[in-house]
Amino acid sequence: MNDVTLKKIAEILGISITTVSKALKNYPDVSKKTKKAVLDLAEELHYTPNSFAVNLRTKESKTIGLIIPEVVHHFFSSVINGIIDEAEKNGYLVIILQSNESLALEKKQVDLLLNKRVDGIIMSLSNQSNFDNHIKEIIARGIPLVLFDKISKLINCSKVIIDDQKAAFEAVEHLILKGCKKIAHIRGPINPQNAIDRFLGYKKALEHYNIPFDPTLVYPCLHVTFDEGKSFAKQIIETHKDVDGIFVITDLVAVGVLAYFNEVQIKVPQQVKVIGFSNWFMSQVIAPKLSTVDQPSHEMGVQSFQLLFEEMSHKKNETPFTPRTILLETSVIERESTKKP
Amino acid sequence: MNDVTLKKIAEILGISITTVSKALKNYPDVSKKTKKAVLDLAEELHYTPNSFAVNLRTKESKTIGLIIPEVVHHFFSSVINGIIDEAEKNGYLVIILQSNESLALEKKQVDLLLNKRVDGIIMSLSNQSNFDNHIKEIIARGIPLVLFDKISKLINCSKVIIDDQKAAFEAVEHLILKGCKKIAHIRGPINPQNAIDRFLGYKKALEHYNIPFDPTLVYPCLHVTFDEGKSFAKQIIETHKDVDGIFVITDLVAVGVLAYFNEVQIKVPQQVKVIGFSNWFMSQVIAPKLSTVDQPSHEMGVQSFQLLFEEMSHKKNETPFTPRTILLETSVIERESTKKP
Repeated sequence: MNDVTLKKIAEILGISITTVSKALKNYPDVSKKTKKAVLDLAEELHYTPNSFAVNLRTKESKTIGLIIPEVVHHFFSSVINGIIDEAEKNGYLVIILQSNESLALEKKQVDLLLNKRVDGIIMSLSNQSNFDNHIKEIIARGIPLVLFDKISKLINCSKVIIDDQKAAFEAVEHLILKGCKKIAHIRGPINPQNAIDRFLGYKKALEHYNIPFDPTLVYPCLHVTFDEGKSFAKQIIETHKDVDGIFVITDLVAVGVLAYFNEVQIKVPQQVKVIGFSNWFMSQVIAPKLSTVDQPSHEMGVQSFQLLFEEMSHKKNETPFTPRTILLETSVIERESTKKP
Repeated sequence: MNDVTLKKIAEILGISITTVSKALKNYPDVSKKTKKAVLDLAEELHYTPNSFAVNLRTKESKTIGLIIPEVVHHFFSSVINGIIDEAEKNGYLVIILQSNESLALEKKQVDLLLNKRVDGIIMSLSNQSNFDNHIKEIIARGIPLVLFDKISKLINCSKVIIDDQKAAFEAVEHLILKGCKKIAHIRGPINPQNAIDRFLGYKKALEHYNIPFDPTLVYPCLHVTFDEGKSFAKQIIETHKDVDGIFVITDLVAVGVLAYFNEVQIKVPQQVKVIGFSNWFMSQVIAPKLSTVDQPSHEMGVQSFQLLFEEMSHKKNETPFTPRTILLETSVIERESTKKP
């Protein structure tokens, strides 16, 4: 209803439509005076270049899609932050969808984004997801795709990840070097690759230091919540009174563990040492301060967009692109929860 | 490059383009058999209906824009959650941008969204923002607009807010009824309406209970961070040793206050009572558990989208719409940090 065509501007100013169009695009062969007149009138008439028409011509939407399991999670919101900052610098908008860890929803969302003709897609897979048809469809259509954090090794596309196995190994090694001899692991759900890799890293560290692996010391989370941390801490200490170390899948759950130990006055780090994963900012705020593995979430977002941008540029120029995997560095951060007494 | 036209499908199946188009749109006058053949072939050929062309016809993009100060903030990520859940239910996608509290960035982002021809915009204003030209431009173009949380009273559009003044009054009243006689206020920045209203609520409560207002007891945050909470707690207790209550603009900052008091062993609630604002889930996890004002963030997102949807529907049907303000309920939640000893 507020749409004004180039034609109207041309009529009012008594110049050709071509000149109006050139003026709006800042072509050098239009005089400054004419440009100013066109721009002023365009502003007065609330003229917007018809971006859909532009899209039809350039075949670019300058929009990318992002599908993540949940927005309300410090790790993911920090990745989002990195992605939209970097996208904006490069003139791209980001459509954000959350799968709520549901494969059905994730499939629907991929469809939506493909119908919207986004120029590329960045995803962190839901716990139920694997190399399913919806992912194959993205690749079959030649839409650039980057996976981060929760990936599937079966999918041949670019990825931005950390070495979860190595990071977990180092976390458990840290507990062992602090004197822990019986270490429990609160792990993530069964399906996602990063939960599997962290579990494997835990197992490898035990093996490396000749500590027998005991499957009853492994507690899988269903929803990865604070409350699960509290209830597993209770189970661990009631079933295995001599556990002296716990490696927890993520800081939020580890904070639940600490909250329970606080309540029942089990001393951390004296009786049990606890290490988390992700370096959530709250982990240095609670008492005792939580040792953890630093996972560069904002950087993960920035790199994911850059990798997608690289692939989109290759596609535009019709030059070949081979998917790459970027591995970001992690490090163990020692705080009070694993200090030697 | 993977684009296939209706023409190709029509050619292969030996039917008319109109029939193909009708089959894809599930018209009743096309046989089930033909529909199946068309859909199967469309899938095989990775056919996508050209959404830009569709957009040109319907003048709807089925996309809305959301501009918020920051994604990595539990309150905002919870509102986002509510908005995208509700938008998806109604077939809308959400483009999310963050202003990082910068007016310049916010203006650029409004421009981007208008050029993208979104059907509507939801915003929470940056601290520097007011009724500036970019907001006027949205309204002048007739694009439905809803503001939430950080609004400006000068802007005539729909809003979803809480009664910050009343909520703050109740928080401070809670401290007074628990016996506090000298109450400090760590407030938000000078500009945003919600910080102003919470400050006015604080003042009114003091007045109502005949406690003299002392401007030196008011500490304005610049960035509303955990660290500001720590440093203001130190300042307050060093400058006013007899302060026995603190009302803090938001839980994150209040958690900083508690962290400092823990460090220097000032007893909460015995020596000083502390109440926050927002009911961040961490506030019931820390020791002592933080009393706070519950702010329904997810609900705020849901209602914001619903209000926008209502306005978009009126626009589509060309029926008049009068902007409305929805006021959501808040309540004081008493936890350990304000308990009577």
